Amino acid sequence: MTDEIAETYDVIVLGAGPAGENVADRTAAAGLSTVVVESELIGGECSYWACVPSKALLRPALLRAEATRLPGVDTMVTGPLDAPAVLAHRDAMVSGWDDQGQAEWLESANIALVRGFGRIAGPRQVRVETPGGEVRLTARHAVAVCTGSRAAVPALPGLDGVRIWTSREATSARRVPSRLIVVGGGVVATEMATAWRALGSRVTVVVRGERLLPRVETFAADLVTERLRESGVDLRFGATVTSAERSGGPGDRIDVTLGDDTHLVTDELLFATGRAPRTEDIGLDTVGLTPGDWIDIDDTCTATGIAGDWLYAVGDVNHRVLLTHQGKYQARIASAAITDRARGNALDTADWGRHASTADRLAVPQVVFTDPEIATVGRTTEDAARAGLEVDVVDYDLGRVSGAMQYDPAYRGHARILIDPRRRVVVGATFAGPGVAELLHSATVAVAGEIPLDRLWHAVPSFPTISEVWLRLLETYRDEQHSRVGA
Amino acid sequence: MTDEIAETYDVIVLGAGPAGENVADRTAAAGLSTVVVESELIGGECSYWACVPSKALLRPALLRAEATRLPGVDTMVTGPLDAPAVLAHRDAMVSGWDDQGQAEWLESANIALVRGFGRIAGPRQVRVETPGGEVRLTARHAVAVCTGSRAAVPALPGLDGVRIWTSREATSARRVPSRLIVVGGGVVATEMATAWRALGSRVTVVVRGERLLPRVETFAADLVTERLRESGVDLRFGATVTSAERSGGPGDRIDVTLGDDTHLVTDELLFATGRAPRTEDIGLDTVGLTPGDWIDIDDTCTATGIAGDWLYAVGDVNHRVLLTHQGKYQARIASAAITDRARGNALDTADWGRHASTADRLAVPQVVFTDPEIATVGRTTEDAARAGLEVDVVDYDLGRVSGAMQYDPAYRGHARILIDPRRRVVVGATFAGPGVAELLHSATVAVAGEIPLDRLWHAVPSFPTISEVWLRLLETYRDEQHSRVGA
Repeated sequence: MTDEIAETYDVIVLGAGPAGENVADRTAAAGLSTVVVESELIGGECSYWACVPSKALLRPALLRAEATRLPGVDTMVTGPLDAPAVLAHRDAMVSGWDDQGQAEWLESANIALVRGFGRIAGPRQVRVETPGGEVRLTARHAVAVCTGSRAAVPALPGLDGVRIWTSREATSARRVPSRLIVVGGGVVATEMATAWRALGSRVTVVVRGERLLPRVETFAADLVTERLRESGVDLRFGATVTSAERSGGPGDRIDVTLGDDTHLVTDELLFATGRAPRTEDIGLDTVGLTPGDWIDIDDTCTATGIAGDWLYAVGDVNHRVLLTHQGKYQARIASAAITDRARGNALDTADWGRHASTADRLAVPQVVFTDPEIATVGRTTEDAARAGLEVDVVDYDLGRVSGAMQYDPAYRGHARILIDPRRRVVVGATFAGPGVAELLHSATVAVAGEIPLDRLWHAVPSFPTISEVWLRLLETYRDEQHSRVGA
Repeated sequence: MTDEIAETYDVIVLGAGPAGENVADRTAAAGLSTVVVESELIGGECSYWACVPSKALLRPALLRAEATRLPGVDTMVTGPLDAPAVLAHRDAMVSGWDDQGQAEWLESANIALVRGFGRIAGPRQVRVETPGGEVRLTARHAVAVCTGSRAAVPALPGLDGVRIWTSREATSARRVPSRLIVVGGGVVATEMATAWRALGSRVTVVVRGERLLPRVETFAADLVTERLRESGVDLRFGATVTSAERSGGPGDRIDVTLGDDTHLVTDELLFATGRAPRTEDIGLDTVGLTPGDWIDIDDTCTATGIAGDWLYAVGDVNHRVLLTHQGKYQARIASAAITDRARGNALDTADWGRHASTADRLAVPQVVFTDPEIATVGRTTEDAARAGLEVDVVDYDLGRVSGAMQYDPAYRGHARILIDPRRRVVVGATFAGPGVAELLHSATVAVAGEIPLDRLWHAVPSFPTISEVWLRLLETYRDEQHSRVGA
């Protein structure tokens, strides 16, 4: 026999990752009673099995790489990273996978918490399976689905018995494998290849396509390819895994077969082959949506294709942009929409309005923490072409910037901005090179701010920083040393 | 008997530092015949005795400091910097004090060069004392004075015989002194104390006032003070040097006396006590200006107080902003003014116009490459108060930003933005902390772009970068956790 509890809140949030936490924070702050439902750790994938632990592994790797390239410091770098220390640092950054601090934050923010597995049970209804029985929740105003995504792993012969790594295991592993095979060529694959190589693993990357990082500018992917190869990573392009089997005997190794019948042996096998929505079993069918699908939304983050405007989908689960910071941004937009609808206020859904997640379409920033770093915002050349946009493509060799030479005398890097020639504003930027992560926000401000080029000339970069590439890019454009593509 | 040569150009540029080079580059590119006069090295103070060599000394120091603070990397850092390697790196960054490459660039840019000491000799006239005799130059349109600044050294008993260091010697020294006394508390003093301490010198800093870096926000100066002390630098505030004497005997040490009669002994004595204009002997008196004074200009960089609009002063020499990048910016403005006046075009001298160096007044960026770095643009709290402006002061502890914790788990830093509450735009920003140098340009773009706060919310910082402090600052302002000062 189970106890049944029934409670009513203004807002129910399914999932306490960064998106869910930020929706709840803002609706609670606005005076709407808010409950969060979470079946795992409060803080979500990002805090425990993605961005936070991956960056904790990568920062030492990148700092060490920088040190090996700078005269006067290079001679200090005698051995590999101190792997146990890096893993202990990673453990500290994820609070030992303990969410007590986050739970206390929820309480301090006046947000109720139900620990258990929540499922939608018709409009504005959620049922949560908890250890103590079922909790029935009713939302006066909104249900926000923030359940995120999980690693998508292909169905392959033998895989069930292999105990593969996904992004979770790759970021939380407690030992450095001697050999690691990474399947995939995207951000998770390249970042984890970088990290584990630096920690001492022999790494092979198996990529279906002919290049790494298919969504970034080619020049950026090429720089990462070059550095990975130099670091000793074995890159196999145009390759697929067709089967994998872990031996039960001593050594406990995995035998992997590729599409061309190549046989490889490894200690761990990481599948970084994309993401799937965590929507299979959250009751989407009870409101006419399809379990297992990503949830379609409009710019206010309201789910489309159902009656009413009570259901929101925020973060990875809406498939707009699978990035923590963009989920937090959407959370702010969604919570403003929830709050203003609850108050009967009109929404400002014009581009860049308070209730429009316009940046999701026009100004998404991303940093890939590989060697070198890739920092990108807005359009790339390829997606401008796909969207049928006319853009001017302005390139500059970052290695020629004085501030970059100061950073690393043999600096290798490249910058590109895309300019809308009609409006004379920057619509995209990509920087690839060591130390460009913090440079990105200048481009994000320029793109989201739609600052006219004539004004951008007055934004003087400090000498000698890498940021001075902005001056060089503007000069290159002024001198008409660019190409026009599209339309 | 000397040969005399007389030549006429559209534009004469006195001084081939960054300001002069950039004026000449643009007027020559616009089709105006242009000559540059230089008595020392083409490339100027910045390239050989200031920014470039100082950053070459500082980058290894700062990278080493970062490495000592990051788990997994810290154990690698066993000894001090490899000082000979750092000095050799510095030598390479200044091309061994050889300006051949720069001379070739001038030629390729179709700019004439006269090597010698130039003096104005009445309106549009310049006479150059060269090894081969006097060269008389006449300018059809403009003379641009870009002679820069030099270290200002106080007249003190004994100093003539001491062979003191100024910024020139401090950036070009070929040996690490065992003991170094730095007089001054500004940017040169703190940067050079940081560099030489990291290279192994025992460093004492003698500061007249009660704090370092009087022109930056107090919190930023305090962080640098703390780190300098921790590194073993002896800071003496409220102190002055009253006399100095170098012994001629073995050891060749300098005896220094302070105002309170303290006696110190050192191997080198650096005076970083301000700058003076290089205008004593450039013929200013022939056009009614005062030799030895800074040259006053308007926003087009045209000298005021003389007849006509043929004389320009660009860079340090006009005393607006003593920073290379701002000199280059002024050079662009000045050359546009020269070119358009030569063509009979009207000038756009409105704020942020093509012929107005507005950023000199409203958006000057600067990075101080100390540990930690200080990056600042636009107003500080103090100068907003001095200017009688009302501003909202928004603070955030950088150590609480996830990206900063990733950068250094014990990150110490602080960020402040100043908001004009009426226009709701950012008018100033200061970041102090490791790794903030490239973060600065985001603030420079926001300040120069005058982006409304409502739009700035759509400029999403990438997680987990230090740039996410922007989100925290905006949240802090939204939650009204700021103070209002002024007016």
